Amino acid sequence: MELFERYRTPFLDYLEEQAPHTPPKALYAPTNYIMQLGGKRLRPLITLMAAEAFSGSITDALPAALAVEVFHNFSLVHDDIMDAAPLRRGQPTVHQKWDVNTGILSGDVMLVLAYRQLERYPAPVFKQLVVEFSTMAQQVCEGQQWDMQFPNQEQVRLEEYLQMITYKTAVLVGCALKMGALVGGASEAAAAQCYAFGKNLGIAFQLQDDYLDAFGDPERFGKQVGGDILENKKTYLYLHACTHASETHQKELASWFSTTTSSPEKISSVCAIFEASGATTAIKAEIDRYTAMATSALDALSLEEERKTPLKQMAAFLLQRDH
Amino acid sequence: MELFERYRTPFLDYLEEQAPHTPPKALYAPTNYIMQLGGKRLRPLITLMAAEAFSGSITDALPAALAVEVFHNFSLVHDDIMDAAPLRRGQPTVHQKWDVNTGILSGDVMLVLAYRQLERYPAPVFKQLVVEFSTMAQQVCEGQQWDMQFPNQEQVRLEEYLQMITYKTAVLVGCALKMGALVGGASEAAAAQCYAFGKNLGIAFQLQDDYLDAFGDPERFGKQVGGDILENKKTYLYLHACTHASETHQKELASWFSTTTSSPEKISSVCAIFEASGATTAIKAEIDRYTAMATSALDALSLEEERKTPLKQMAAFLLQRDH
Repeated sequence: MELFERYRTPFLDYLEEQAPHTPPKALYAPTNYIMQLGGKRLRPLITLMAAEAFSGSITDALPAALAVEVFHNFSLVHDDIMDAAPLRRGQPTVHQKWDVNTGILSGDVMLVLAYRQLERYPAPVFKQLVVEFSTMAQQVCEGQQWDMQFPNQEQVRLEEYLQMITYKTAVLVGCALKMGALVGGASEAAAAQCYAFGKNLGIAFQLQDDYLDAFGDPERFGKQVGGDILENKKTYLYLHACTHASETHQKELASWFSTTTSSPEKISSVCAIFEASGATTAIKAEIDRYTAMATSALDALSLEEERKTPLKQMAAFLLQRDH
Repeated sequence: MELFERYRTPFLDYLEEQAPHTPPKALYAPTNYIMQLGGKRLRPLITLMAAEAFSGSITDALPAALAVEVFHNFSLVHDDIMDAAPLRRGQPTVHQKWDVNTGILSGDVMLVLAYRQLERYPAPVFKQLVVEFSTMAQQVCEGQQWDMQFPNQEQVRLEEYLQMITYKTAVLVGCALKMGALVGGASEAAAAQCYAFGKNLGIAFQLQDDYLDAFGDPERFGKQVGGDILENKKTYLYLHACTHASETHQKELASWFSTTTSSPEKISSVCAIFEASGATTAIKAEIDRYTAMATSALDALSLEEERKTPLKQMAAFLLQRDH
């Protein structure tokens, strides 16, 4: 997307410049491999965007942006092991291309390398950034733990689900924005508004992902529509229907979710239950609610309107995606 | 040992006080389990000792000491997965008691928790500590990578082996001392001397471990004497003999190391080769050389002699161990 292009080139140049080419090769070849697999790089670009909004410059924020991207990739490497995922961005995952031990150890060193990027900042900002980063990193681990245990947990409450997606994915968006703001010289209060903007945007985005997985346009949604349903995934839609659907529908849903069929009938039947039970209406309301919270955090931000424009465009882009 | 007792109680009290009791339980039960398995806690106690040498107080150094111990336990949890080790300190390892995914994720959060302990220090010291800590953590990952790849590497040079043990184990001792010194208000120069003292002491200790594994008194050495030999481990003694032994002995050694017997004859024959080839003499000389470097770093430290006494006693204790 045009909006991001201005940030992408300096970021990718910096990423390449910072790639470790020191021994041991067997440790850093996997880290360079995963970092070069691509992806949209939205998180680090958001950091640059936030920094620019405050200071007018993006160069100073490159290390913070890279810390965010390296952390994200660390979590992908370890999550892919835990999920036994063979592919990432259409290519073999690290543990698949090498082995599990390599995935564990190169993930570990990536977490350290993420912290090391922040060493480029003077002590006061460094401390603010590291505290923010560690808080986020701990929450991401907690979110991953909940995500891992939900399939075996008899009942998952909607609040638990919301906390899981908040910790597993949204706090990193909040942190990406806040770190950029801090590097750009934002006050603690302004940086906190940026965090709230990013976190709520992240939650809205993740809920929308749940929604699109069931009801998205197959032509525009990147993944297979109905994928979550075929995987019996406990999404917001499913969890809402479990408690709000009619007794008959609850039984029918439970019955579908006890099968591992890949029949299109499962997708259409489950979607019909989501609609009838009010789950679809509820998730749309939640998406709107979190989007409104994100917007109002941005509105409350004490910054010239003009400077907020890229952030607003970015939010609009993320929430009206066909990608 | 008496010397350490004064530090152990406050450290164990702080460790217990800091144990996370927040959800998710499935994430923190394993971290609390491994932290409570015990061990001698030498590394964190060394941090307290170094801080006391400079500031006269140990309380301020408790978070730095805990960071060191949490990091050490993080590395044990992940190393035990990589080594498929069923036991640690006579108890099931984390991945054995729970599963590999739990071991990966709770290890990850421990690495973050180690960083978080350092948040208790003001920004300037915080940055010094985090930079030191991250440098060490990256090197420990690199050391672990070398350790993992040496069994499959046709030739391992003695310098490569020395670098491996330096990174895998000795830099943490150096870091433990340096962090204590920094918390205690030491100058950068004095902190660097402490690091040199600890790192060289760590190398001497590890080489002595190699030596005692082959030639230690079974009554006094904690592990099975000859264990490394039965495991065909490429220790300093083995690597030295591989290049310095007579041709006949080199062949005999290669033959023994191609078997997986647990016969006592293997141990005695290999030890005889180590003696005859000069490997035993060489390792003793190396232990003396690194001990001398540690001692001279401590001697060069600009600090009243009296204040150095516990550090000297600690070094003497570590290198004359029957434990």
